[in-house]
Amino acid sequence: MQTAIVNIGQLVTLAGSPRPRIGAELSNLAILDDIAMLIEDCRITAAGPYAELKSSIPVDATIIDANHRCVTPGFIDVHTHLVFAGNRAAEFEQRIAGATYQQIAAAGGGILRTVTLTRAATEDKLLAAARRHRDWMLRSGTTTIEAKSGYGLDRDTELKMLRVIRRLNKEGPARIIPTLLAAHTVPPEYKDRRADYVRFVAEELIPEVAKLGLAKYCDAFCDDHAFTVDECRTVLTAAKKHGLQLRIHAEQFRSGTGAELAAELGAATADHLETITDETLQHLRAAGAQPVLLPGSVFALSRTQYPPARKMIEAGLAIVLATDFNPGSSPVPSMPFMLSLACLQMGLSPAEALSAATINAAHSLGLGAEIGSLEAGKQADFVIHEFADYREIAYFIAAPMRPRVFIAGKEVAG
Amino acid sequence: MQTAIVNIGQLVTLAGSPRPRIGAELSNLAILDDIAMLIEDCRITAAGPYAELKSSIPVDATIIDANHRCVTPGFIDVHTHLVFAGNRAAEFEQRIAGATYQQIAAAGGGILRTVTLTRAATEDKLLAAARRHRDWMLRSGTTTIEAKSGYGLDRDTELKMLRVIRRLNKEGPARIIPTLLAAHTVPPEYKDRRADYVRFVAEELIPEVAKLGLAKYCDAFCDDHAFTVDECRTVLTAAKKHGLQLRIHAEQFRSGTGAELAAELGAATADHLETITDETLQHLRAAGAQPVLLPGSVFALSRTQYPPARKMIEAGLAIVLATDFNPGSSPVPSMPFMLSLACLQMGLSPAEALSAATINAAHSLGLGAEIGSLEAGKQADFVIHEFADYREIAYFIAAPMRPRVFIAGKEVAG
Repeated sequence: MQTAIVNIGQLVTLAGSPRPRIGAELSNLAILDDIAMLIEDCRITAAGPYAELKSSIPVDATIIDANHRCVTPGFIDVHTHLVFAGNRAAEFEQRIAGATYQQIAAAGGGILRTVTLTRAATEDKLLAAARRHRDWMLRSGTTTIEAKSGYGLDRDTELKMLRVIRRLNKEGPARIIPTLLAAHTVPPEYKDRRADYVRFVAEELIPEVAKLGLAKYCDAFCDDHAFTVDECRTVLTAAKKHGLQLRIHAEQFRSGTGAELAAELGAATADHLETITDETLQHLRAAGAQPVLLPGSVFALSRTQYPPARKMIEAGLAIVLATDFNPGSSPVPSMPFMLSLACLQMGLSPAEALSAATINAAHSLGLGAEIGSLEAGKQADFVIHEFADYREIAYFIAAPMRPRVFIAGKEVAG
Repeated sequence: MQTAIVNIGQLVTLAGSPRPRIGAELSNLAILDDIAMLIEDCRITAAGPYAELKSSIPVDATIIDANHRCVTPGFIDVHTHLVFAGNRAAEFEQRIAGATYQQIAAAGGGILRTVTLTRAATEDKLLAAARRHRDWMLRSGTTTIEAKSGYGLDRDTELKMLRVIRRLNKEGPARIIPTLLAAHTVPPEYKDRRADYVRFVAEELIPEVAKLGLAKYCDAFCDDHAFTVDECRTVLTAAKKHGLQLRIHAEQFRSGTGAELAAELGAATADHLETITDETLQHLRAAGAQPVLLPGSVFALSRTQYPPARKMIEAGLAIVLATDFNPGSSPVPSMPFMLSLACLQMGLSPAEALSAATINAAHSLGLGAEIGSLEAGKQADFVIHEFADYREIAYFIAAPMRPRVFIAGKEVAG
């Protein structure tokens, strides 16, 4: 099965990055103009001028005309809470009317509202909800999604969420990478004995999840309202021991909440980092942890402190950009909108934002050799945009574009 | 030709507003749950419980199943620069990199870049570009669009833009309302003799446009970088004399730029108003001018001063919400995203934002008896959202939704 994509006006390859991109590398998109791309089965075999490739295209190949538009790798969204029941639109309204987080929580809102609904949902119903969210992401050009548990906070529901992720990955077409986030918040049952919950997660749940092969990563939310650095250390150390790799919610609201721990434990990523200090940035760099920027949650909470992305680039960190899609702090499924926020609010160039959303994101999931760029040997996950120039993806803000999205060489519909 | 929309989970009618809504009226959406809506030819004939309406539905009626979703009036976008050639994505990149407006203008950017491209474009090419932008709006649920000239700044191109608007309105399906904005900025040819340009607009162009029936409204950009209050008065007074109604770009960057003039001349709207004072708000209210909030341009310019929407509501003003879609300061075609910005950045409730984007918008175009709400006698312009609750439109930020959009009772595709 061969496919030729012809009349590509601008092929943004992002090729040639065996390691995550840092510094000026983020701006070098390795763009080819007026190009064709060949695909055999699910992989890219070549990209080059049509005249050169023409003779390698078999007569029975499928020909797809890109109409002189821009083609980029599919977006890779490395931080999502994809699986949840219900939504929190009512709470959104209350928050705008001035209700505090505490008032909303007291009225049964907040994360625990989603926990209640997610616990009550059947696995099939939860799968249907996750599929709907996944479809929104596909429509926006996202082809690989990291998805976390964390709205169960008990054995059965955490496993149910991870099974939903496994089923959704298996049914395709998007690749879904599972992360255990049992340490998302302390569940009501453990309100007065949080140490017991941490022990349960570290000593019972993690071993079981690891044994079942239900997660690749383990995450923990290090925050004043969630878990302390020591509690996160307990959870993540257990996860590491059981062969899970690490991600961590760190420094979102206060410095000193988790980024040092990410460096200490060799986490793949430290996510959020709105309040990170210059010194801690250096420690992350030394440890090779990638910062994951989540501007959607800053925007959706009407906050103004975005993570210091330019400082991160100057410090040589391999930044990643993701949505943090979730029903509370970031009901924002769109990676193109993250590119817009990255440019407008964090001062990234469109090129830097695109590198962070594709090749660097792939590396942060250990998939840098498989996806994230368009070059021979990689899986053919790509997007034919409605634009001629990649900069328009960030520039036409919140535009209802309908890109053509391909995963493993096949066009998908959201 | 009769159509019945059945299984509407939530019908947001916004009915019962013969005048623009103010104060608490903005929050009263007149919602009907579990409802059907009947349409004959292009008009709504009834809305009510299915059991009650059932007998009035002819056997050959077209039945559309809303699947228990939310139905709202189509959005009415009353401030757009829909017609332009090219785009300014390169300038977006330069601005993020720190270039000032002056540097960009010196490098051939800014409004004059779009003027150059728009002058050079053939009428058919310009129509194709406008149609593409219109389609993005349709996809987002916008069914009526105000569109301005203003990238010509010479007789032929201003007329060309207005003819494009007329042709696009005529071909349908969206209703497009034409506005002459020759006083957008001083064209390069008149750089050192701006009084001559104002005279040309007031004494030659306006009479010709009025005679040709090419515009319903006349607008002027009152700003330090555009036209003074006196210059705007000259233009708008001439427009009024020739039977055009008035809109005005006012108080965007500095107080004292145009809102008083809007009140003085009885303009339908004063648009932008980021810097308006409390006192001037009272004058607008006394004159019955509606403020048009354009949060897209604040957001897209990475600015932080949004118009004081809550103060406007408190002052009894009939607020309107629009995109300001244009290639420079607001490359944002989506009304749902305006609802999100209105809630997150201006403290409007989802209900207030929706009223401002529909019924109040209709009144600001003199179309309050024809569109803007869903009730018997009005044109059947409506949207079946992918949501069950109207609050989700603002809450799921920048989500790539695919609503079903109907204009005059017929489903349209963007």
